[in-house]
Amino acid sequence: MSLSLRRKLRCAMVGGGRDAFIGRVHRHAMALDGRIELVAGALSSQPEKARASGRDLGLRDERNHGSWQALLAHELLLPADQRIDFVVIVTPNDVHYEVAKAFADAGVHVVCDKPLVHTSEQAAELAQIVERRGTVFGVTYNYSGYPMVREAREMVRAGVIGEVRKVVVEYHQGWLATQPAGNKQAEWRADPARSGAAGAIADIGSHAENLVATVTGLRIESLCADLHAFVPGRRLDDDASLLLRFHGGARGVLIASQIAAGCENDLRLRVFGSLGTLDWRQETPDRLVHARIDGPRQILTRGSPWLSEAAQRACRTPAGHPEAFIEAFANVYRGVCADIHARLAGSRADPIEADYPRIEDGARGVRFIEKAVQSAASAHKWTAFLD
Amino acid sequence: MSLSLRRKLRCAMVGGGRDAFIGRVHRHAMALDGRIELVAGALSSQPEKARASGRDLGLRDERNHGSWQALLAHELLLPADQRIDFVVIVTPNDVHYEVAKAFADAGVHVVCDKPLVHTSEQAAELAQIVERRGTVFGVTYNYSGYPMVREAREMVRAGVIGEVRKVVVEYHQGWLATQPAGNKQAEWRADPARSGAAGAIADIGSHAENLVATVTGLRIESLCADLHAFVPGRRLDDDASLLLRFHGGARGVLIASQIAAGCENDLRLRVFGSLGTLDWRQETPDRLVHARIDGPRQILTRGSPWLSEAAQRACRTPAGHPEAFIEAFANVYRGVCADIHARLAGSRADPIEADYPRIEDGARGVRFIEKAVQSAASAHKWTAFLD
Amino acid sequence: MSLSLRRKLRCAMVGGGRDAFIGRVHRHAMALDGRIELVAGALSSQPEKARASGRDLGLRDERNHGSWQALLAHELLLPADQRIDFVVIVTPNDVHYEVAKAFADAGVHVVCDKPLVHTSEQAAELAQIVERRGTVFGVTYNYSGYPMVREAREMVRAGVIGEVRKVVVEYHQGWLATQPAGNKQAEWRADPARSGAAGAIADIGSHAENLVATVTGLRIESLCADLHAFVPGRRLDDDASLLLRFHGGARGVLIASQIAAGCENDLRLRVFGSLGTLDWRQETPDRLVHARIDGPRQILTRGSPWLSEAAQRACRTPAGHPEAFIEAFANVYRGVCADIHARLAGSRADPIEADYPRIEDGARGVRFIEKAVQSAASAHKWTAFLD
Amino acid sequence: MSLSLRRKLRCAMVGGGRDAFIGRVHRHAMALDGRIELVAGALSSQPEKARASGRDLGLRDERNHGSWQALLAHELLLPADQRIDFVVIVTPNDVHYEVAKAFADAGVHVVCDKPLVHTSEQAAELAQIVERRGTVFGVTYNYSGYPMVREAREMVRAGVIGEVRKVVVEYHQGWLATQPAGNKQAEWRADPARSGAAGAIADIGSHAENLVATVTGLRIESLCADLHAFVPGRRLDDDASLLLRFHGGARGVLIASQIAAGCENDLRLRVFGSLGTLDWRQETPDRLVHARIDGPRQILTRGSPWLSEAAQRACRTPAGHPEAFIEAFANVYRGVCADIHARLAGSRADPIEADYPRIEDGARGVRFIEKAVQSAASAHKWTAFLD
Repeated sequence: MSLSLRRKLRCAMVGGGRDAFIGRVHRHAMALDGRIELVAGALSSQPEKARASGRDLGLRDERNHGSWQALLAHELLLPADQRIDFVVIVTPNDVHYEVAKAFADAGVHVVCDKPLVHTSEQAAELAQIVERRGTVFGVTYNYSGYPMVREAREMVRAGVIGEVRKVVVEYHQGWLATQPAGNKQAEWRADPARSGAAGAIADIGSHAENLVATVTGLRIESLCADLHAFVPGRRLDDDASLLLRFHGGARGVLIASQIAAGCENDLRLRVFGSLGTLDWRQETPDRLVHARIDGPRQILTRGSPWLSEAAQRACRTPAGHPEAFIEAFANVYRGVCADIHARLAGSRADPIEADYPRIEDGARGVRFIEKAVQSAASAHKWTAFLD
Repeated sequence: MSLSLRRKLRCAMVGGGRDAFIGRVHRHAMALDGRIELVAGALSSQPEKARASGRDLGLRDERNHGSWQALLAHELLLPADQRIDFVVIVTPNDVHYEVAKAFADAGVHVVCDKPLVHTSEQAAELAQIVERRGTVFGVTYNYSGYPMVREAREMVRAGVIGEVRKVVVEYHQGWLATQPAGNKQAEWRADPARSGAAGAIADIGSHAENLVATVTGLRIESLCADLHAFVPGRRLDDDASLLLRFHGGARGVLIASQIAAGCENDLRLRVFGSLGTLDWRQETPDRLVHARIDGPRQILTRGSPWLSEAAQRACRTPAGHPEAFIEAFANVYRGVCADIHARLAGSRADPIEADYPRIEDGARGVRFIEKAVQSAASAHKWTAFLD
Repeated sequence: MSLSLRRKLRCAMVGGGRDAFIGRVHRHAMALDGRIELVAGALSSQPEKARASGRDLGLRDERNHGSWQALLAHELLLPADQRIDFVVIVTPNDVHYEVAKAFADAGVHVVCDKPLVHTSEQAAELAQIVERRGTVFGVTYNYSGYPMVREAREMVRAGVIGEVRKVVVEYHQGWLATQPAGNKQAEWRADPARSGAAGAIADIGSHAENLVATVTGLRIESLCADLHAFVPGRRLDDDASLLLRFHGGARGVLIASQIAAGCENDLRLRVFGSLGTLDWRQETPDRLVHARIDGPRQILTRGSPWLSEAAQRACRTPAGHPEAFIEAFANVYRGVCADIHARLAGSRADPIEADYPRIEDGARGVRFIEKAVQSAASAHKWTAFLD
Repeated sequence: MSLSLRRKLRCAMVGGGRDAFIGRVHRHAMALDGRIELVAGALSSQPEKARASGRDLGLRDERNHGSWQALLAHELLLPADQRIDFVVIVTPNDVHYEVAKAFADAGVHVVCDKPLVHTSEQAAELAQIVERRGTVFGVTYNYSGYPMVREAREMVRAGVIGEVRKVVVEYHQGWLATQPAGNKQAEWRADPARSGAAGAIADIGSHAENLVATVTGLRIESLCADLHAFVPGRRLDDDASLLLRFHGGARGVLIASQIAAGCENDLRLRVFGSLGTLDWRQETPDRLVHARIDGPRQILTRGSPWLSEAAQRACRTPAGHPEAFIEAFANVYRGVCADIHARLAGSRADPIEADYPRIEDGARGVRFIEKAVQSAASAHKWTAFLD
């Protein structure tokens, strides 16, 4: 059944009110394909702001709530054919856990922003609930939605670059090189109570970790981290450098820095194999460089007919008509929706359609942050990933 | 009044049914901001296909028509608060004229794909109707919607590169380097009856012309064209090279080629002024290179706080979170919608909001194609732009 | 016989004294391989400056002359085993003719800068002398010495990109965007008496023409030129745009501009064939982009083992250890020297070794300039290349 | 006194015979400016090969030796005005020490390839001799000779990017991704007896270390290294990743890998300061990217008039006429020669002229390799740089 013949899915958003950066991105991503309808919301922890934000978006008053608890209670009273199909959680990190738990426990499918929660214990509990209730649970590691990231993954799986030996992933941002005044995102991200025990390593390091796991499938065996806060007064790391060792013998380097002055959103992944190297950069996401030991370097581009099916089906426009951040984000939603539709139909989703990061990815990301913090704080730096 | 407080606009689409490339792009672009609702359609010239396509999109049966005439007739019977606010025309080029004329004449706002029509006479007639009826008429020269194209325009206007002396615009595609088998777009574009008297110069040369006009504001005084069809059996040009002279003394080169084997959608504009040069490439649209005579080259990037208001307001994500083709396309729709909202409110639109190509741009593009064909066919090659 | 076993060749330089840009480049290029010895000179038309310049370079007094006539006379008196093997002419353009004629007529091998001379008649006369005397005559179209230019040529010859359909060559410099004060090069280049009837089209357009001819082997059938001087008071063109038609049906565009504000030395060649496209840029000379209709774009790099022998033998360092302008220049000298050595040995040079632009290339370049000027000045713009 | 008025310096080469890669590069670099004369040699440890190599280069028989001992003995017998001014040591690493010691002890100026020697003890001994004898001692960390590396250094010194916080340096090569058959360089580099206790970390890691020290002036306080040999049977590391801490609080990452399949010679340095970031890549050495917190990114290019004097004086051609590897190498020689000339004249060299890596840099590089090996081998990974 083609995507377009399915009914639109109904969703509610928790968080993401006026001035929230990421909530707006989620809404663009959901809107892009015209297959999702935002019908309800509790868009802020401040009731008045929540309702004002909902009115901006055209939510009807009875589904525009001042708290996520009210939202959930109301939805559960609605008949199934009006009730939301899923909830999107785009609050600050410290709220993810309780909201996700409540909705999943009520059998509502969930899309939650990353990092998933603050502790591995919370992640494990959520995973159990999701398992028990059989709900879909997507984590918006949005960079996994880029077609050329998927192409890289398929190439690694197909053995195109041979055995993976080394991974270098780096995520450089510059927006925290100074203390931004009056920046809402900067504020809560720098507050341990809301962000958790980690700063850059959580906020963007978790994206880097997910990108490595997505593309290579490698599991970290141990890591050695150096975390630091460069800007005076900052309580959480704004710069992180890690050495990685993977099961099976591959090695790696992971850098996540938010004090890379003048950098924008420079996420780059290189995977070095025995036969070749893949190189992808988020700021030019339609290109994937493939260096080979036995021939000229190749520039693979999104939309080309010789790409894998996984990459091709993640495209909306032909080669040379660039796609970018919102489109990749929307691909995560496409995957979640395909899975929800399959469950609605009582079937199993086509794996190429239901291609999205799941709660296991979110849980592993939480562990990664914990281990990085633990390594950086310890005298013996190399820290096992699984105790 | 902020965009989000306005009601959603209702629209109908003519053309753009199953398998149509550009219709789908228009729908993504309209959906992106969640401010437009597609409520009606006549999506193909084949009634059955039209209706099947409409069902794919979730159109209600009574507004899912087998012909644009039926669509128009039905809409005119509806009360104003249900009637469409505008129509989108994404048929092959030969149909633009009659559909645009009928809807505009009926007082419906119009968005029409490019090239606008086949002849300057048709364009002039349309312009008269639009003038008389006071309708909004947008032409989807979508590349004008890129934030960095707008930044380039603002920089030229502000005199940053001094007096413009030379313009080089080139649009290289490779998809017609061979005769693509079973490609719907390739077929009608190669058919003079449907495409008009010109091939590459119309299909992509008109984009190049619009880009020059948008950014520089220069008007062509005369041109000298060499058009050629390289692929055996092709009846319309697949390659065009032009020398340009502008009013005021600037010179230019325009290249539009669809036989540039291995190229994707490589549209590039360079504007050489007395103080510096601007260089923009569609395939990396978030960057604008500014070379200067008195300092290092600068790379301006979308989302930066030092850009013009026109560029900044055309953004949805921060710097480094790339935006691309669909977002630029959506910016044309944003501009059209802002103008429609203003007219609904009986006011004049904010010019930064209502930033979109209009019927005059479409008409000038038609004349450009005519003159290029005339120059190429003549013995004396330099041809005046205005007779 | 390997290059290194041959004796060093002795050379004299005419022109290229203190403050001369290109003379110094020639000397670096000659020195690079340690196979040429500069033993004599007449380095300026001003005798005192000539001798002072020669002393800077360590020339012995008896071979450090105040005029080229004295130099030639003295050399002819020396025994063969001391006499110069060749002369290098790096004077302003207006002096090339008489110096080249005198030395070639005396049986001395010649390396002459470009453009060769002012008129086709002069070029024809020189060619006759060279033919009659059997001398080597190299013209320093130095860009032909880049390994990746040679690779491009070999790929075209081997049919890798199929039939050549279109050529776009552009040479953008910005140093004449204003009138540079006290710049020796700018002065004589802007003086018709010294530079000839053309400015940018001669100075850099001739390089562009040579690059096209070298790589594609195509011969121009006719051309249509637009030449202009943008900077007030300038008597020679500083900007040129040409449409080209080649024998056999290929088309082309050639741009040579010295008012491209902020550009440095941006020479780029694209050759579009029926199967693929080659793209080379002088400012990143170690790369050659090969776009294909049936697979991903490839980046060929200098030093790679899969390149042609012609490209490989033009390298001094392995891949990734960049080579650049002087090395390419030195390759022209290598070719000339290989030819001189072959003649000294009474043999024919290996064509891969004796790979350098010859007097025919210089003569064709002169005709190109003449025809561009003629086309630009005529009412009927398209001008046949051969009358 | 301008460079060109000084007499040519006489030099001898030890090592660098037929088939040696780096010896040939040194000879090109010495030849480029025409200010150095190679007059003697002991070009191989095999006497016959040594002499055959010397004949290739045109060395006179009496100065073409079968051993460096014979070379040194002979030179010391010559009158001062014939004797070599300096020796160049380009043997495999294990021979550096004894040769350098003998020549320096005899009062001969030395240029020695890197890494300097095998142990810090050897380095300290050499340094003492150099100090005592007052000889010039250059170490060919050739990347320090690039004009844009010098520009970066000057910018850091001038505070353009504020306080340096983070350094990321990476050197990726792919030529050892497999075991190259019959590659002389690969063989001795993989042999601990000749290369020392380290592979990639010594061969290219030492370049990376030097680049960091040159540009930032920072001193390493401690480091944490992960070294690994990926190719089966290899006894020395072919991949190294290090975390760095610098005195004063800056942090760093250093990667040196020779198994980066398909990479050529990809050395890149990024220096992140509180006000901006510098980014330089060896494969495009004429560019230096300067990202700023308060304005657009700038691309600084070699040859521009707004560069520092240190960068400008390291150039031979104008902007856009690229310079590369050999030219940078030649700049190290220029610096050494300027220092030798100053000593010959009994004066102190102009520091901008005598800009070259010295024995202290070589000694620090040796310590860096030792500490990396020590850290990688230890259980407690963080290792102090100075005991």
